[in-house]
Amino acid sequence: MDKNVPAEYLQNKITGEMGNAAGIFYPTNTAEVVACVKKANEKKQKIITIGGFTGLTGATFASQGEVLLCLKKMQQIIELDPQTLTLTVEAGTSLQAIQTYLDKTPYFYAPDPGSKEATIGGTAATNAGGMRAVKYGVTRDNVRGMEVVLADGTLLLVGDLNNKASSGYDLKDLFIGSEGTLGIITKLQLKLRPKPATAQSILIGFSNLAALAPVIYQILASGITPTALEFFEKSGLTYASNLLEIPVPSVAGAAFLLLTVDGNKKECQEQIDSLKELLIAADIVAFSTLTDTTAAEIWQLRGAIVSGVEAISIQEPLDIVVPINQITSTILYMKKLAQQLELAGVFFGHAGDGNIHACIMRQNLSDVLWQKRLESFLSQLYREIAARGGLPSAEHGIGLLKKKYFIENIAAEKLKLMQQIKTAFDPMGLLNPGKIFD
Amino acid sequence: MDKNVPAEYLQNKITGEMGNAAGIFYPTNTAEVVACVKKANEKKQKIITIGGFTGLTGATFASQGEVLLCLKKMQQIIELDPQTLTLTVEAGTSLQAIQTYLDKTPYFYAPDPGSKEATIGGTAATNAGGMRAVKYGVTRDNVRGMEVVLADGTLLLVGDLNNKASSGYDLKDLFIGSEGTLGIITKLQLKLRPKPATAQSILIGFSNLAALAPVIYQILASGITPTALEFFEKSGLTYASNLLEIPVPSVAGAAFLLLTVDGNKKECQEQIDSLKELLIAADIVAFSTLTDTTAAEIWQLRGAIVSGVEAISIQEPLDIVVPINQITSTILYMKKLAQQLELAGVFFGHAGDGNIHACIMRQNLSDVLWQKRLESFLSQLYREIAARGGLPSAEHGIGLLKKKYFIENIAAEKLKLMQQIKTAFDPMGLLNPGKIFD
Repeated sequence: MDKNVPAEYLQNKITGEMGNAAGIFYPTNTAEVVACVKKANEKKQKIITIGGFTGLTGATFASQGEVLLCLKKMQQIIELDPQTLTLTVEAGTSLQAIQTYLDKTPYFYAPDPGSKEATIGGTAATNAGGMRAVKYGVTRDNVRGMEVVLADGTLLLVGDLNNKASSGYDLKDLFIGSEGTLGIITKLQLKLRPKPATAQSILIGFSNLAALAPVIYQILASGITPTALEFFEKSGLTYASNLLEIPVPSVAGAAFLLLTVDGNKKECQEQIDSLKELLIAADIVAFSTLTDTTAAEIWQLRGAIVSGVEAISIQEPLDIVVPINQITSTILYMKKLAQQLELAGVFFGHAGDGNIHACIMRQNLSDVLWQKRLESFLSQLYREIAARGGLPSAEHGIGLLKKKYFIENIAAEKLKLMQQIKTAFDPMGLLNPGKIFD
Repeated sequence: MDKNVPAEYLQNKITGEMGNAAGIFYPTNTAEVVACVKKANEKKQKIITIGGFTGLTGATFASQGEVLLCLKKMQQIIELDPQTLTLTVEAGTSLQAIQTYLDKTPYFYAPDPGSKEATIGGTAATNAGGMRAVKYGVTRDNVRGMEVVLADGTLLLVGDLNNKASSGYDLKDLFIGSEGTLGIITKLQLKLRPKPATAQSILIGFSNLAALAPVIYQILASGITPTALEFFEKSGLTYASNLLEIPVPSVAGAAFLLLTVDGNKKECQEQIDSLKELLIAADIVAFSTLTDTTAAEIWQLRGAIVSGVEAISIQEPLDIVVPINQITSTILYMKKLAQQLELAGVFFGHAGDGNIHACIMRQNLSDVLWQKRLESFLSQLYREIAARGGLPSAEHGIGLLKKKYFIENIAAEKLKLMQQIKTAFDPMGLLNPGKIFD
């Protein structure tokens, strides 16, 4: 164990708060993880697993003198099996490394969360989604099997390469999205898909979010199957533009839908034609079929909205999700609530999934005003989202920062069952203590 | 409680054995289920939930004086929501009733297990699959939310209508496939899909299973996306033909692949063309694009293979699954093993999922010979399947009949974790005791 924990690992990136940890381990293989956990177990030492340190909910924040188990040295790409279309990797491998590796093959891994420095293990721990979830599902749908180390050091394989299973309880899906509280994911078998022949991105401009909102649901109900269906405002792109020094696209509009269709050339064209027909009656101000170069730039800008905001203000990153028929009214509700409370917000997200992101910005507000308004905003928002059948987090997780609102809005009996599972898996409460719930 | 339990509910359909139950309840709504469970709880009375009584593993067999909780009177179709494409139904609704209801709508529910008398709750309890899983997934992928009653009578809603979730543990997928051992499913929200414009079935004849086997994997690797991809031998169809009095199709061959493609007319034709091209080099003896009438007859025959076998012999129904690259060699392995042990077998299944069914037939064997040969066959088979990364059950479940082999071949630490979950959910062991594992 190294007692010298890098300061960056001790900071809560969102709040700026500094925590404390007893030390840090950098295991290089599963056996070392097992040994480390067994040792910690004997001493009742609490453990937080960390990966790319890109989480947005303080899920890896240490505040109880925990030991950090950093998996960044476990980044081996072990095997690509073209017969079962499976890629086996160590949990510390970054999304970027996986993408770079697959670039040279005919296959791709569908989940595409914003931060490419995220480790694949971290994305499984949070059930991350990303841009392409609307067509290809979230991490849960794209991880077939995992190697997991339990709180007592037991090594386990969950899931498998079978296409069907009715042979005992579904353990794999319990670990996915459990944010390091049930076990430590050390290895993953990822589902690959053949790369589509081609893809075409389209940018649709609207005069404002209110004009854009109804179109989301129309597209989804039409049978068009976009690979990605994103919404954002021009103001959001401007923050990204300033950070990346890439110009905001010259397409008219104050609010935009950005979507991609993929398949062979003919399939793409058919989808674009259907889309154009659908939009005849819509209140749009621009429809732009993007060149590959422009598309790459706009996707880069879209991906950098959060970083662009972070560069100029403390912010609260939201990740709510609602049933798809509620997305348009929810976007407008959020925007209005922020206005009422005089909070600046940047609204965007994965429209096709009902997943609305927003950065609520502190700007120049005093400590007192910021805390008061933000608390009021979040309390009302999360209550409203629960009433709409939505959830506080679609893909970031609950971690520390959303814990209060998660607990306030979940049914008590459901929370109790989750706590019972936690107790069964980790009776001494050693793994990522105090995250998701107490 | 009615102490007069219908004899049919007491029989293990596969072995013929008669069990014993303390009585039977027929609740008509969730409140009555809760009341019944709470009462049972006070008396530490064990409960077995039963639905359509169509299971194939003895999962609802009562042998400890349990109370049977029959959900057949809970068969209300509650709501079709076209906005979220969700159908809400009570758990005792049969697949047939759901299909009949949806026939009058533009939507369908994708899972299509063999027995249409199965209740939807039973199909969730076993994570049933069926013919269309190769394209549309299994029950797990098509159930969005469920109402569940826990062992202590607590009522719970798990899952929801959101397309993404990273807000606490995935409870829904734990109940699905848990065979009534973790909770009683009382209501379900099912995912609907728009009906495809058209569908086309194709029957491909081969001189024997050995010639057919390699073609399964070729089709799957080709990018063709069949809605169903079934294999069977002519001998299997003959049993069904005798039972249903429908003639065996006149298409040449001793072994067959039966597949369907769906979509618009053009998409179907493109897939058929690709298939024909793919098969130029294959060792086939017939390729028949079926009329709707013939297709309906052959699908009926395919669906009645098990009943046809049951009509003439006691049989052991198999439901193994292997990774898709192992399917061809596994079929041949099974056939050879049965021959070596002088056991008659009918081999068929969902080729596209790696899910091989077989009926191992007793015919005129003496008790002793049948038990000895079957035991030898099953022990060797399940060990081999485990070595290949497969599972003892793809869609029927473990229940009572596969328990021994399930336990013999699962990793001890995995079984232990399942047992810990069971204990956390049902500490007194009241729900479907002794099923899956002890």
